Amino acid sequence: MKIINKVLRLKKRPIGFPDEDTWELNEEILPSLNEGEILIENKYISLDPAMRGWINETRSYIEPVKIGDVMRAGSIGKVIESNNPKFSEGDVVSGGSGVQQYSINDGKGFFKIYPGKLNLPVFIGTLGMPGMTAYFGILEVGKIKEGDTVLVSAAAGAVGSIVGQIAKIKGCKVVGIAGGKEKCDYVVNELGFDGCIDYKNESVKRGIKKECPNGIDVYFDNVGGDILDSALIFINKYARIVICGAISQYNETSAKGPDNYLSLLVNRGTMTGMVVFDYVKKYPIAVEEMSNWILEGKLKSKEDIYDGIENFYEIFKKLFNGDKKGKLILKVN
Amino acid sequence: MKIINKVLRLKKRPIGFPDEDTWELNEEILPSLNEGEILIENKYISLDPAMRGWINETRSYIEPVKIGDVMRAGSIGKVIESNNPKFSEGDVVSGGSGVQQYSINDGKGFFKIYPGKLNLPVFIGTLGMPGMTAYFGILEVGKIKEGDTVLVSAAAGAVGSIVGQIAKIKGCKVVGIAGGKEKCDYVVNELGFDGCIDYKNESVKRGIKKECPNGIDVYFDNVGGDILDSALIFINKYARIVICGAISQYNETSAKGPDNYLSLLVNRGTMTGMVVFDYVKKYPIAVEEMSNWILEGKLKSKEDIYDGIENFYEIFKKLFNGDKKGKLILKVN
Repeated sequence: MKIINKVLRLKKRPIGFPDEDTWELNEEILPSLNEGEILIENKYISLDPAMRGWINETRSYIEPVKIGDVMRAGSIGKVIESNNPKFSEGDVVSGGSGVQQYSINDGKGFFKIYPGKLNLPVFIGTLGMPGMTAYFGILEVGKIKEGDTVLVSAAAGAVGSIVGQIAKIKGCKVVGIAGGKEKCDYVVNELGFDGCIDYKNESVKRGIKKECPNGIDVYFDNVGGDILDSALIFINKYARIVICGAISQYNETSAKGPDNYLSLLVNRGTMTGMVVFDYVKKYPIAVEEMSNWILEGKLKSKEDIYDGIENFYEIFKKLFNGDKKGKLILKVN
Repeated sequence: MKIINKVLRLKKRPIGFPDEDTWELNEEILPSLNEGEILIENKYISLDPAMRGWINETRSYIEPVKIGDVMRAGSIGKVIESNNPKFSEGDVVSGGSGVQQYSINDGKGFFKIYPGKLNLPVFIGTLGMPGMTAYFGILEVGKIKEGDTVLVSAAAGAVGSIVGQIAKIKGCKVVGIAGGKEKCDYVVNELGFDGCIDYKNESVKRGIKKECPNGIDVYFDNVGGDILDSALIFINKYARIVICGAISQYNETSAKGPDNYLSLLVNRGTMTGMVVFDYVKKYPIAVEEMSNWILEGKLKSKEDIYDGIENFYEIFKKLFNGDKKGKLILKVN
């Protein structure tokens, strides 16, 4: 029996914001399995802002996706055939299958998940890459402690929403920055942040001044640009700034640095970049702790799920135009 | 007997580069000592780029010098009268007397020095604020370890020259950045750096590529601007950037941030600001270790000494126009 696989491949490198022609969707016949390989039927595919960086040609923390390669993406799927002793038919696995219906690989970088009472998409979001980024970013890089004032940008997003909730669990005062009243209400009323600045409708500087009257101890930055510069003005002595991403810059052909960086000198602050893959060995600890928080109702996980690989481009755009709430996920039909 | 004191006072706040009218030189009659006070005859006054920041009105790590105040400066002097049990006539003291011939104060922030075989001006430079900045900046913030590649800007300057020499003592490969062939030759031939990039006559990017083929582990930044941006391109994984100063920016009315700061993310780098005053309690440890290095010939101390408070402005300009080598010091007549 031949299986037809819908596969999204990188067709060309974009300049600025990717257009639809950046990728092409092919229908390909799956080859048969070699020794050591597994065949995964993908269920959910993760859409992340980092994808924009992966298709640049420039040096980064990970090899660029090559022209013609399957578009890289995190995924959850079910093993439907296995020539690898570590996996059995029926196993649910998490890993990086890429944007395709099926994937054949040697199992490296894949691990089994045991959903229990939790829904599968949670393992793409709160218990997947964004959740791991939030957990290690705010705890190990941000080094939050009780009583800290923590500011988080993209607060309604997959990473920011978890960062803020973890900081609340740890006894911090947490203020978010998000675009629009609806997102800000969600961040405060549903996620329990102490405040939220609506950067689309108010001055971020004035907002920080009002919401963080004692200054900022930790700023978790997902956006870069002017918001990072505004945060720098209000950092306290020994503040930690976690550079997790810079979504305002990803589609710019020339980046803009933080002009107020000398606030680091004045305040003996630290700005540190992080890449979640460095913490892979510790993921199980985070998954266990965060699963408990979810089951205890302390941590809310929100997924924004859309159907169909053929709709990839339309859904991808939502990462950058603000038209989503929570973790963006593609459901494979 | 009345003593006439030449005193330099701040007259107005400069915009951009200070002009001569920023300060005024007065001759004032010294009052008599109150209980607990000491009278110091100043011998040497320290001229530092940080002075430019101290006369801005904006929030910083230290209160701005007020209009009408004596211009703040580090100093070495001799106690010639004491109403304070902690000090005796004849004591040589280091502290912040400001730009004046004599100072009367309560002794707070002053400590006795015992020059032994060392010349007094060394206690303004290598064993003074610039030396302490270098020592704690490269060791505690830069966290250098044997085998690291260390890049230092303003390498012929009071701080940079010591940073590089300490890094050499600790077994690092050290590359400097300085302006002009003479300074670069000095840095390599006299101070023992492994290489030096002449930013006035070559591309800093190409220079770093050539001199640091294995990338940069620690960058000690005294200058900011384009040079910081160039260094960011070449940092290694887990690199540490010490933000000690930004002399290229001090006289700018609007600062320019490091556009390549996302290299911190890619490389999990850290950029940390430092202020030497945080390490005051540990100064004696540094002074002892560095004195030994000087006496053993491992650490060279160079002072550029000019005469006369009345020449303050002309000498101050040398801090910014590159026309000096080593620590800039004003000798009080």
